[in-house]
Amino acid sequence: MTARSSKRIELTILSDEANDIAEAIRQRIADNNDFIGADGLPLLTLKKIAQCPEDVNPETVTVLLADPDLASRIIDTCSALTWCQSTWAGNAPLLNADKKNYILTGLKGIFGKLMREYVFAYLLGHARNVKAFEQNQRAAQPIWEASKRMPLNGQTLGIAGLGSIGQALIPVAHALGMSVVGLTRSGQAVEGADAVYTPDTIEAFARACDHVVNLMPDTPSTQNMLSHEFFSALKPHSVFINAGRGSAVDDDALLQALDNGALAHAVLDVFRNEPLDPAHSFWQHPRISVTAHTAAESQPSDVADVFLENALRYINGESLNYQFDFAKGY
Amino acid sequence: MTARSSKRIELTILSDEANDIAEAIRQRIADNNDFIGADGLPLLTLKKIAQCPEDVNPETVTVLLADPDLASRIIDTCSALTWCQSTWAGNAPLLNADKKNYILTGLKGIFGKLMREYVFAYLLGHARNVKAFEQNQRAAQPIWEASKRMPLNGQTLGIAGLGSIGQALIPVAHALGMSVVGLTRSGQAVEGADAVYTPDTIEAFARACDHVVNLMPDTPSTQNMLSHEFFSALKPHSVFINAGRGSAVDDDALLQALDNGALAHAVLDVFRNEPLDPAHSFWQHPRISVTAHTAAESQPSDVADVFLENALRYINGESLNYQFDFAKGY
Repeated sequence: MTARSSKRIELTILSDEANDIAEAIRQRIADNNDFIGADGLPLLTLKKIAQCPEDVNPETVTVLLADPDLASRIIDTCSALTWCQSTWAGNAPLLNADKKNYILTGLKGIFGKLMREYVFAYLLGHARNVKAFEQNQRAAQPIWEASKRMPLNGQTLGIAGLGSIGQALIPVAHALGMSVVGLTRSGQAVEGADAVYTPDTIEAFARACDHVVNLMPDTPSTQNMLSHEFFSALKPHSVFINAGRGSAVDDDALLQALDNGALAHAVLDVFRNEPLDPAHSFWQHPRISVTAHTAAESQPSDVADVFLENALRYINGESLNYQFDFAKGY
Repeated sequence: MTARSSKRIELTILSDEANDIAEAIRQRIADNNDFIGADGLPLLTLKKIAQCPEDVNPETVTVLLADPDLASRIIDTCSALTWCQSTWAGNAPLLNADKKNYILTGLKGIFGKLMREYVFAYLLGHARNVKAFEQNQRAAQPIWEASKRMPLNGQTLGIAGLGSIGQALIPVAHALGMSVVGLTRSGQAVEGADAVYTPDTIEAFARACDHVVNLMPDTPSTQNMLSHEFFSALKPHSVFINAGRGSAVDDDALLQALDNGALAHAVLDVFRNEPLDPAHSFWQHPRISVTAHTAAESQPSDVADVFLENALRYINGESLNYQFDFAKGY
């Protein structure tokens, strides 16, 4: 027995996406010497891959990679548990459970890179009029035509909410030749943003932007902050993207502004009620694109990446990333 | 009379898009003090805005902003011409004319920024499965569903042809967390590319890529370079974008590879014969997107930007950007 043998991981995966996550982990550890011990044996083995709590024997669980809603149903009886890596950013179901004598880590550091792909997929798709070219191609008689385009280069992107996710958009905007302005509660300077406005100056913020992305969290002060006055101050060519929270948007004001031509298009990923009611007028509006709260939804590969980085730290006896503090509750 | 009065510009615009270019120029010089002389009078005035050579009186033309095919029909009688800013990058029609005692400048420095928006609009649209979300939204009964996505982050972009346009893609790829490899005739190192392959190692290039963009010029050696062997070495999830020349692609090999699942999707902007024949099977293929040789087509705003930067240089007696050398022919 060496000191390292006590740090081997026998992993239980409990997740709706357990099989995809397991496959992503297998791909990443194959031929990776970091996960081979000095004795030539693997330091990480997949003991149990389950989609239902009923399929797991809690008393044998030592390291758990799990959806927190599923994990919360067995956590109190996982007597040998030392570490749980959650597949979510937030972990209310586990923070509210009785058991607290283990390390709980969250899924973090990955949402900015997902969000930037969502935001620029829709901004660039609009700028290049991908839809018009597709319609021309799929017409009964295909049409060879230079549909109208408007480059992002030289335009200004407004980002409402400049936390780590909002800031992740800035380098991509700059690489595309865009300027960036922000809207935050404090109005404090943020690197890469030419100006940062506050809720008091939200109309000046809207006037400064060609396109706006909302990433503000749901707090009492952000409710309906994106109002008639905000949308009216946008430009007729503006695209508005909401990937923060649905409660920030006055839905009627948005519909009215679209119908008045105060902005060109809205891309909505979040809503006051989700899933969005099939009868909601957002679905049918020709100048609204609806997505299913998927803008920054993690993929099994993201879960595998965050878990394996922490697994190496665990094996090497280092402190883990993204640990929750049960006392503080976050 | 001051020294500056000799440098005033009375502009003639001769272009299919004369009106849009004129409007873009007007917007940019309004309230711009750089274009007001010491005497308070404008340094740049629009004398004539024409779409047909017949509408221009050649003998009165001093500064011309023109499509070279139209300009070539009057250039030899423009006896007072001092400078012609072309709206094209290439200028064969004017380089082949008799008249050579004037400054001819091309439209350059703008294609990279247009191309990068085209390439990433289609790569991100595919990565985020924009089409599936749109189909779900427009279904008879809208569908709230997390369609499959595959992030560009962590993937490798291959660029065949690493001139100024190809290199303009690199900072955007990096900002999105992609690696870049290249394919060039020389295989010389290029900043930002992890490896540069040559035509001899084109299959290794293809194997190194998640997605490939072709930007190679039309030369005898690039004809059919993107062959069965190339397409077969791509990945089932690969997107192939051709925005170089149609002659580089073996059309049948591409169709066969798509149908065999050797790659996921092709985005084609250039073809052996343009416009693309309405009967060509590219139009109907569900996994091909066709655009109309518009990937890096300049906009009136681009023409205005390049012209006005040169106009300021002209007014101030400085040498102009992107001058052609009649002796060398480029």
